[in-house]
Amino acid sequence: MADSCHFNEEIPEIKYQYLDHTADVQLYSWGDNLTEAFEQVATAMFGYMTTDYDTVEMTSVEETEAEGEDMQQLLFHFLDEWLFVFSADPFFIPRKIVITEFDRENFKIKSKGYGEEFVIGKHPQGTEVKAITYSNMQIHEDKNEIFVIIDI
Amino acid sequence: MADSCHFNEEIPEIKYQYLDHTADVQLYSWGDNLTEAFEQVATAMFGYMTTDYDTVEMTSVEETEAEGEDMQQLLFHFLDEWLFVFSADPFFIPRKIVITEFDRENFKIKSKGYGEEFVIGKHPQGTEVKAITYSNMQIHEDKNEIFVIIDI
Repeated sequence: MADSCHFNEEIPEIKYQYLDHTADVQLYSWGDNLTEAFEQVATAMFGYMTTDYDTVEMTSVEETEAEGEDMQQLLFHFLDEWLFVFSADPFFIPRKIVITEFDRENFKIKSKGYGEEFVIGKHPQGTEVKAITYSNMQIHEDKNEIFVIIDI
Repeated sequence: MADSCHFNEEIPEIKYQYLDHTADVQLYSWGDNLTEAFEQVATAMFGYMTTDYDTVEMTSVEETEAEGEDMQQLLFHFLDEWLFVFSADPFFIPRKIVITEFDRENFKIKSKGYGEEFVIGKHPQGTEVKAITYSNMQIHEDKNEIFVIIDI
């Protein structure tokens, strides 16, 4: 590196801004059956929100119900319901999600999440999930695999 | 919250992955003249790489030279040269960038950056800038404003 002496050390005034910011990530999950793949993809979503998911203790439980007109809408609503639980006071983050009822004919899911309130400081902040999308959503019922893109 | 007793506390095996991840951010800078707008947009790029830009001390200096066929290509190369300085050992991050020569007829820029080696732990890690893009790049020479989208 060159000589660093003799320069104006004054920090310039800030004349810039960060504007539009778009980002997404594709979640891929699988399981021994479709129920497990659904549980896993919801867990994947929450795993993105903290850089150390193991800091989340399972001290309480929240329940959600979701339904749809078809499997894709059901998946969307299932994830969206969980995202809502995280977004609203007390900002609950589940460490484990268990589907207690999966009605594949009427497209309804009841599930429980075991976890606790998300607390900055206790839980290393990951990336906020802003929204679930239908973009390139894939539910492979034959292989029990799911692909979902979420906005972050 | 409901009762949390009597559930299987075993953490499920991980059956998910995070796949494609795309993100960009638009930098917007301005100045009293075009030179300052160029300096500012490069600074904006580096400001994105740490969550506390004030931790960067100006203990050494690096220089770059860039040129192009037109103003947009010059801007691209100017930023790309600085990105390269950050990407290569010793991973130099400038706190302040000063353009020492700006040849607007032949599209050449010489500049100096005052800063130091980027050190995890000393400098809170922000978001890695992966590439400069030409996407919707705007250089308003009349208003001394610049818009650049960078991949992160």
